[in-house]
Amino acid sequence: MSGNTFGTLFTVTTFGESHGPAIGCVIDGCPPGMDLSEADIQPELDRRRPGTSRHVTQRQEPDTVEILSGVYQGKTTGTPIGLLIRNQDQRSKDYGNITETFRPGHADFTYWNKYGIRDPRGGGRSSARLTAPVVGAAAIAKKWLKQQYGTVFHGGMSQLGEIVIPFQAWEHAANNPFFAPTADAALILQLEDYMDALRRDGDSIGAKIDVVASNVPVGLGEPIYDKLDAEIAYAMMGINAVKGVEIGAGFRSVAQRGSEHGDELTPEGFVGNNAGGILGGISTGQDITVSIAIKPTSSIRTPRRSIDKDGNPVVVETFGRHDPCVGIRATPIAEAMLALVLMDHALRHRAQCGDVKSAQ
Amino acid sequence: MSGNTFGTLFTVTTFGESHGPAIGCVIDGCPPGMDLSEADIQPELDRRRPGTSRHVTQRQEPDTVEILSGVYQGKTTGTPIGLLIRNQDQRSKDYGNITETFRPGHADFTYWNKYGIRDPRGGGRSSARLTAPVVGAAAIAKKWLKQQYGTVFHGGMSQLGEIVIPFQAWEHAANNPFFAPTADAALILQLEDYMDALRRDGDSIGAKIDVVASNVPVGLGEPIYDKLDAEIAYAMMGINAVKGVEIGAGFRSVAQRGSEHGDELTPEGFVGNNAGGILGGISTGQDITVSIAIKPTSSIRTPRRSIDKDGNPVVVETFGRHDPCVGIRATPIAEAMLALVLMDHALRHRAQCGDVKSAQ
Amino acid sequence: MSGNTFGTLFTVTTFGESHGPAIGCVIDGCPPGMDLSEADIQPELDRRRPGTSRHVTQRQEPDTVEILSGVYQGKTTGTPIGLLIRNQDQRSKDYGNITETFRPGHADFTYWNKYGIRDPRGGGRSSARLTAPVVGAAAIAKKWLKQQYGTVFHGGMSQLGEIVIPFQAWEHAANNPFFAPTADAALILQLEDYMDALRRDGDSIGAKIDVVASNVPVGLGEPIYDKLDAEIAYAMMGINAVKGVEIGAGFRSVAQRGSEHGDELTPEGFVGNNAGGILGGISTGQDITVSIAIKPTSSIRTPRRSIDKDGNPVVVETFGRHDPCVGIRATPIAEAMLALVLMDHALRHRAQCGDVKSAQ
Amino acid sequence: MSGNTFGTLFTVTTFGESHGPAIGCVIDGCPPGMDLSEADIQPELDRRRPGTSRHVTQRQEPDTVEILSGVYQGKTTGTPIGLLIRNQDQRSKDYGNITETFRPGHADFTYWNKYGIRDPRGGGRSSARLTAPVVGAAAIAKKWLKQQYGTVFHGGMSQLGEIVIPFQAWEHAANNPFFAPTADAALILQLEDYMDALRRDGDSIGAKIDVVASNVPVGLGEPIYDKLDAEIAYAMMGINAVKGVEIGAGFRSVAQRGSEHGDELTPEGFVGNNAGGILGGISTGQDITVSIAIKPTSSIRTPRRSIDKDGNPVVVETFGRHDPCVGIRATPIAEAMLALVLMDHALRHRAQCGDVKSAQ
Repeated sequence: MSGNTFGTLFTVTTFGESHGPAIGCVIDGCPPGMDLSEADIQPELDRRRPGTSRHVTQRQEPDTVEILSGVYQGKTTGTPIGLLIRNQDQRSKDYGNITETFRPGHADFTYWNKYGIRDPRGGGRSSARLTAPVVGAAAIAKKWLKQQYGTVFHGGMSQLGEIVIPFQAWEHAANNPFFAPTADAALILQLEDYMDALRRDGDSIGAKIDVVASNVPVGLGEPIYDKLDAEIAYAMMGINAVKGVEIGAGFRSVAQRGSEHGDELTPEGFVGNNAGGILGGISTGQDITVSIAIKPTSSIRTPRRSIDKDGNPVVVETFGRHDPCVGIRATPIAEAMLALVLMDHALRHRAQCGDVKSAQ
Repeated sequence: MSGNTFGTLFTVTTFGESHGPAIGCVIDGCPPGMDLSEADIQPELDRRRPGTSRHVTQRQEPDTVEILSGVYQGKTTGTPIGLLIRNQDQRSKDYGNITETFRPGHADFTYWNKYGIRDPRGGGRSSARLTAPVVGAAAIAKKWLKQQYGTVFHGGMSQLGEIVIPFQAWEHAANNPFFAPTADAALILQLEDYMDALRRDGDSIGAKIDVVASNVPVGLGEPIYDKLDAEIAYAMMGINAVKGVEIGAGFRSVAQRGSEHGDELTPEGFVGNNAGGILGGISTGQDITVSIAIKPTSSIRTPRRSIDKDGNPVVVETFGRHDPCVGIRATPIAEAMLALVLMDHALRHRAQCGDVKSAQ
Repeated sequence: MSGNTFGTLFTVTTFGESHGPAIGCVIDGCPPGMDLSEADIQPELDRRRPGTSRHVTQRQEPDTVEILSGVYQGKTTGTPIGLLIRNQDQRSKDYGNITETFRPGHADFTYWNKYGIRDPRGGGRSSARLTAPVVGAAAIAKKWLKQQYGTVFHGGMSQLGEIVIPFQAWEHAANNPFFAPTADAALILQLEDYMDALRRDGDSIGAKIDVVASNVPVGLGEPIYDKLDAEIAYAMMGINAVKGVEIGAGFRSVAQRGSEHGDELTPEGFVGNNAGGILGGISTGQDITVSIAIKPTSSIRTPRRSIDKDGNPVVVETFGRHDPCVGIRATPIAEAMLALVLMDHALRHRAQCGDVKSAQ
Repeated sequence: MSGNTFGTLFTVTTFGESHGPAIGCVIDGCPPGMDLSEADIQPELDRRRPGTSRHVTQRQEPDTVEILSGVYQGKTTGTPIGLLIRNQDQRSKDYGNITETFRPGHADFTYWNKYGIRDPRGGGRSSARLTAPVVGAAAIAKKWLKQQYGTVFHGGMSQLGEIVIPFQAWEHAANNPFFAPTADAALILQLEDYMDALRRDGDSIGAKIDVVASNVPVGLGEPIYDKLDAEIAYAMMGINAVKGVEIGAGFRSVAQRGSEHGDELTPEGFVGNNAGGILGGISTGQDITVSIAIKPTSSIRTPRRSIDKDGNPVVVETFGRHDPCVGIRATPIAEAMLALVLMDHALRHRAQCGDVKSAQ
């Protein structure tokens, strides 16, 4: 109830702070009998890991995951799966200057007002580092969904600041540090230059990320409040720095007519996907398409006005190691959240309606 | 777990179908000792009611609410509050032609595939009519939040199709059928003409709605998954026909730099509100600002291709009574969802941290 | 969260007070496609109904149930089922003398201290009348469990005050006003005389009730906290006036040796059922056997010492219509609670592990 | 939803198996600002620890707890508290003979049937070892309740097999290996001899345990399903080997008259406590008194009939290290469960009704 558990039937309860001894989670509700080892989880953690290019934070964290429970002789047993990731590269001294002041755009002010106390080391619990256990948990969900229904996930960056990145193919996203789904080398170079200039300016920038789930069974989602799109919006808006979520046509729907927006059906399937794979809160079997807006990183070198705990004016300059575009590492996280939502609703569907039909 | 309960501590469990005998809800967790009667609830229901202008469905429903429990001698007792609204104007014959076919853009296809059965009368459970009990429940939340913290809610339409509606003042929203926050009579006339033309065309249109909560206490929201913005996104995306949600700067954040986006603080308060009143998932005390994209109504007179239950091609024409822009009546609904989220988090805050500080 | 919803996946949210306009509930999570009408529910309500013999309260309530939603053309649709029961025989004047004082053994004192307000009419929300909606909801669960697994429920009184009622056969329980599973007419007469004497004394008495579920699938229950026996204990102790719960050998286990208590297994099945059909919190497929202790009705004619709201000493005499042994009508209620627990866990099992095997 | 989280607002999510690498839990919802270190938790774990007398299992586990998160500079921050206990003394070879067979009285048969797989090492997840994280979590709850309301907990054994242990004073429970609340040295000797004889016989025995919470605020508990007594029954029946739960007069209520059972009130307080400190599901401010029946340990040396996975008859003899009376170590566990229930309801009370009044 204090908001550290995600999901209803496939639940992920996380713990940990950016610079505490460890982060991790407990995954409850995993179906028994699935092959599982650290080797299934580590690759997803590695996709999200810091320090992998010069455009992201240089913090060095191997993010090595240990499975503490729930697996016997290489198979899930149906009991909770504990995941543990020890923090290695805590440099609390980097953050010494912020313990008494509130960094603009950060959770410092709100945590202080809510709890009357906060862990200022690396943002404490509000750090994007806390997405690591979720990505680990989602690796399990992805594996199960793929085995069960053939469901697969893709994602990538569609805009960096003002630069729109035209979509070519998802597989290209693995070949550049931006998760840009393009093979256009000149465009990648432009993105690199753009980031370098930002870093020189001591500034940061926003981004837009798209994620897609394919081979999704028909019928996932609950009709009134736990609509599949509502749950996806909740999951995405819960990622650090996200300020907007769209499903399917999203905000383009505002200027669309019904005759254009409503996807017609033929015996061969739907004609178009303005719905983004969801009608009435329930999956149609088409691709589920989601876009998210990510705000620029709040930690920048440029001096900024703020106040301290006592309300006195101060100037804040943030040094230390930060992603100048937090959106760059957001793709695997957004995929993870989408996978967790679908996993949860696959189990919910089984509870009330029995096994789902396979994807169309 | 089947998605018909909204909230965690202030919960609203709804029931009912568009053309069944009644709709209603059970509100659990209301603090005891608050004055409450039907007179507190009916005005909010009347704002949402169909048949109030020629631009919305002509279904005649008085939406008279009866309090069944939880109130003794005019005060809440802390026990659940049952609300009942009898359906009056069911015309099931209007919907006879759709029992065997799936209307494009509607939940017909997905309900059928999920449950193997569906109530086709007026969209059954997927009808926007089911927002009425929620609006009733939110009237109680609004009253409590206003008494406790002075929190007030406003909302209105900011775009109808291609027509942008410049904001003047919230109070104007009550004076035109569009909830447009403008006193520009020529613009209202333009909106009227736009709707009349659409109706002649047998088509429908999307809209953008903004809602704002003012005098919100600092500290509402949970840090990781039940972030206040995540819960708002969930609540808004759960409204029928919503395809996109923004908090604060929303998708404009994508092209913003950190030096522009991050709201600076001074001893007098925040400078700007790109955050939309939420940082790190917790309220800052500023206005909470939300925008939503609403798709065009799926029920249109224009013939459309579809299939029937057996997969045969059919042509669907929808007659009957429909809102040509479902966004027109969305403002009180979006306000209601925002109020329910804040109410729930006000109680959650009290549980863990004691009483919240009053709004800034 | 305010405790008015029972269950996790098959949820029953109730509302209402003893002398308010109506009582009822919303049942969420019912599987779609099951035949259902009021005729399936009313007989269970009639078993629990007041006024059916001279040994129970003479309040006249037809307890006629109306299904408000969730059923279309005689079949469940998977959407929430609203049940409504109008109160008919409210005699609030009977309770006038208790609005300012706390009746010993009743919830008057605690409600007042918790909420600062209470509905004194007939005990308000704390009345045993509120078990009616639960019995209605359980009728749906019973029907589904019987269709799906052949599960059936029985129950009866095994002790009334000091009088032990030896078990003969469950079917006899329907033939006497005590739900005594015996055909011993002399014993029934003894029970009648015992009750008549009590009524003359203006006193009340406790009782012990046994309930059994047969043809329960193997594998229901969750291993650590939501053990099937833990959930049954919760359900039973939640019934008004229950002070003790036993599963299987219950308190006899204290003096048993392991060599006696542990039920051996043979290829033909278990030898004995000290476990009461549950091992490690999970059903074994044997009969689930439960016993509960019900305290004597707190409303008695005998004058009793108490205090009023201001702490002044008073003498309380309760007139009006009361069950002199609230245990007499407890059998259908205890069966109902057991059915709701099993229904909930049947769905939970499907979610994580797929369909359960049929009962042994 | 798979039953590994305890509580609603103060939640404890556990993970781990008896012979896996570690056990632990995540505690969510702890109020911020309370002093906390491992030194607050370790003493409670030490009370429950195995290997502390010759009457309990000789497994050597230091049960050293590590706080992984949620504490900064010695104070709780309001974020989740991760607790980790590494398993040290796993002797999986001891359990080799049971991987293919079902031990009578154990969860082997039911886990196998539910999940199709089970971790047989030391009972896996069904081991009483899994009560350790709960005891750790409860140490935090106890500290908060004591600081806030002065609430304290006591417990002890009131019966071992046929031997009734007359209550003298709670403080004596700390001075003997049985948690017997007596200073009668001859009785303790009798208990020692009784246990020695049992061990020679290769058998085991049941026990009855009493626990009491004093200085409990008035008003904790929810009226209908989450009654305080219902939640206590759930918590207690969830402890390994518990088969019965009583509140207050418990099963003695069956033969009591209303004029005897109902505790009268005077300006000086209640006269008697048959209610066990709970009326209508809500605490009265009196001591909360609970008794539980614990079955004899199922692991005994005496040969027993059973079957293997394929249904063939086998004879099972259990060697290895086992508590011959699992009830001996149950006292700190039962206290822990009671503390967790009260903590949870203290927070629930704050949510709906504001801060509770202090204890009477």
